[in-house]
Amino acid sequence: MPEIPTTMKALIVKYDGYSGTSEGPAIERLSDWCELSEIEVPKPKGGQVLIKVGLANVNPSDLHYIKGEYGQPRRKGVPAGFEGMGEVVASGEDEAARKLIGQRVAVSASRGGSGVWAQYALTDARAVVPLHPKLRDEDAAALIVNPMTAWAMLDLVKKAGARAFVMTAGASQLGKLMATLSKEMELAAVATIRREEHRSLLEGLGVGTVLNTEREDFEDMLVMAMRQVQPTVLLDAVADSRSADIFAAMPGGARWVIYGKLSPQSPALPSLGQMVFMKKKIEGFWLSDWLATASPEARREAFEKVQERFVSGAWKTDVAAALSLPEAEEKLGEALSGLNRGKVLIRP
Amino acid sequence: MPEIPTTMKALIVKYDGYSGTSEGPAIERLSDWCELSEIEVPKPKGGQVLIKVGLANVNPSDLHYIKGEYGQPRRKGVPAGFEGMGEVVASGEDEAARKLIGQRVAVSASRGGSGVWAQYALTDARAVVPLHPKLRDEDAAALIVNPMTAWAMLDLVKKAGARAFVMTAGASQLGKLMATLSKEMELAAVATIRREEHRSLLEGLGVGTVLNTEREDFEDMLVMAMRQVQPTVLLDAVADSRSADIFAAMPGGARWVIYGKLSPQSPALPSLGQMVFMKKKIEGFWLSDWLATASPEARREAFEKVQERFVSGAWKTDVAAALSLPEAEEKLGEALSGLNRGKVLIRP
Repeated sequence: MPEIPTTMKALIVKYDGYSGTSEGPAIERLSDWCELSEIEVPKPKGGQVLIKVGLANVNPSDLHYIKGEYGQPRRKGVPAGFEGMGEVVASGEDEAARKLIGQRVAVSASRGGSGVWAQYALTDARAVVPLHPKLRDEDAAALIVNPMTAWAMLDLVKKAGARAFVMTAGASQLGKLMATLSKEMELAAVATIRREEHRSLLEGLGVGTVLNTEREDFEDMLVMAMRQVQPTVLLDAVADSRSADIFAAMPGGARWVIYGKLSPQSPALPSLGQMVFMKKKIEGFWLSDWLATASPEARREAFEKVQERFVSGAWKTDVAAALSLPEAEEKLGEALSGLNRGKVLIRP
Repeated sequence: MPEIPTTMKALIVKYDGYSGTSEGPAIERLSDWCELSEIEVPKPKGGQVLIKVGLANVNPSDLHYIKGEYGQPRRKGVPAGFEGMGEVVASGEDEAARKLIGQRVAVSASRGGSGVWAQYALTDARAVVPLHPKLRDEDAAALIVNPMTAWAMLDLVKKAGARAFVMTAGASQLGKLMATLSKEMELAAVATIRREEHRSLLEGLGVGTVLNTEREDFEDMLVMAMRQVQPTVLLDAVADSRSADIFAAMPGGARWVIYGKLSPQSPALPSLGQMVFMKKKIEGFWLSDWLATASPEARREAFEKVQERFVSGAWKTDVAAALSLPEAEEKLGEALSGLNRGKVLIRP
């Protein structure tokens, strides 16, 4: 095992706490929110592990966070980055943490740890997942946030007794994962897109109904699709007035499950009739809650199933770019502007 | 038993279906929506019963309905009126219906029947409740919609594991019923009012915290109250931006249960953080659903407990006026304008 240096390069957060704004997950320059610094390599204690980061992911939640618009307050001076992969190189004294040393793992950040947009990251042993030897680094770096969300949300759809669901932002990485998973789980999917060129991609993955929210005939197509497919769960990454239109067109008993906010728009609360007479419900989904409340067995099963799908080739993380830390500071905003072409990763 | 005439006087609905408007439950003149007519007395079949109406209630849902803004389409030419009391004078051939003949009952309208703003009303045997002999006619006429809603919603609060709740429109009849019930059930209540003179009334009924939404210091008082009382269910008859403010100020895990829409305003959907990170939920409550899905035992228990409270004097229906059918056609709008002084009833 190579020696661990005293200092490391990291993209650290520039501000503390919440910004009070609500602009959504878009940035022009990363340097507005993070700066590349040489800081001390953190030391793991107790149940913590230190990971030499191989590849780090960039998710909308990272952008929400560095802008001070996420559900957790920013910690100034601490590296950003919620998700990545690497090798465990040190641990605290706990047995479960020590056992992980030398293992190749997927990493998610934990409270009290430090982010993965850095050469080394500190997290809880419970927040890392040992990897299948055949899993590619690119897939490993994006193993938790999107695939586990896809898994957990379709699990929710199934447990709700639904036979069909709607997903917004269908052409996103998460949308594509849910598309293939829905086919396996025999759930009928309706996906929304904003550009016509994404239609054939989703249809190819098995999505039965693709609706373009930007087309003039959207509302007619929506009403027809909802009548035919009768989806009863809306998995929503956008939460704008289009989402509200979809929810309103869904049959009685429908659930609107909000898990992201790609739009800064605030739609109006649905009408009384929707909530009272049609028994519709609105709720949120947060992977961290799911992971925190799922049983160890359910977690293990989910991680295994998710990795199997990547190893078999059913799932694949499309990568648009892999930037070094200095490159990321300079041109991450630009690289992200073509989000649907694939993931932008950081290679510290 | 007196003979049943062939025709009767009734306030019949003037229009069919939905209006597409959303103005809320206020009317200027009843004659804009209903007209007094001489129509045939309906004949009960199967499980139906015919009631000679003693007193009929006027609820916000009746006004929503006659205006075409309710969850059920209007039926032109059929008497309006969802709730009242009277005597069962005829029945269809079903045993359960026949057993009710001669009984004094509370009535709620049923699909396929006819409303109680008429000398006779047709409904399902399942939609009538035999009355305690000591229950006053005024209390019987308002036995189902408000008292059963109060009972069923506080049952929901209790089953949600909440120790405290918020109710909007606290000075309404329903609010007063929930106030006394919350005291018995040892639930801490926060009530909103719009006029300062209602404060002492609610405090007298045992409401620990009364917030005036029209006062300039409302938002400060709200934040303080939510911190102190930590209510986790919002029982909401208003669904305006004040309700949204209350929901936003409530602790994590809070449920916004909408059961009425006194305001025509549409507030914005709560923020992502509220739904996702704070695990809040929005849903509706409709008594008809509760009655349709509750077990016969749960229904019976609820009706007994509710009647006991009126007989003992713990609950009381305050009556502002009792109008004949011609008087109602002419001046119901006017009589309703002072809603919080008490119920307006119709005596056909």
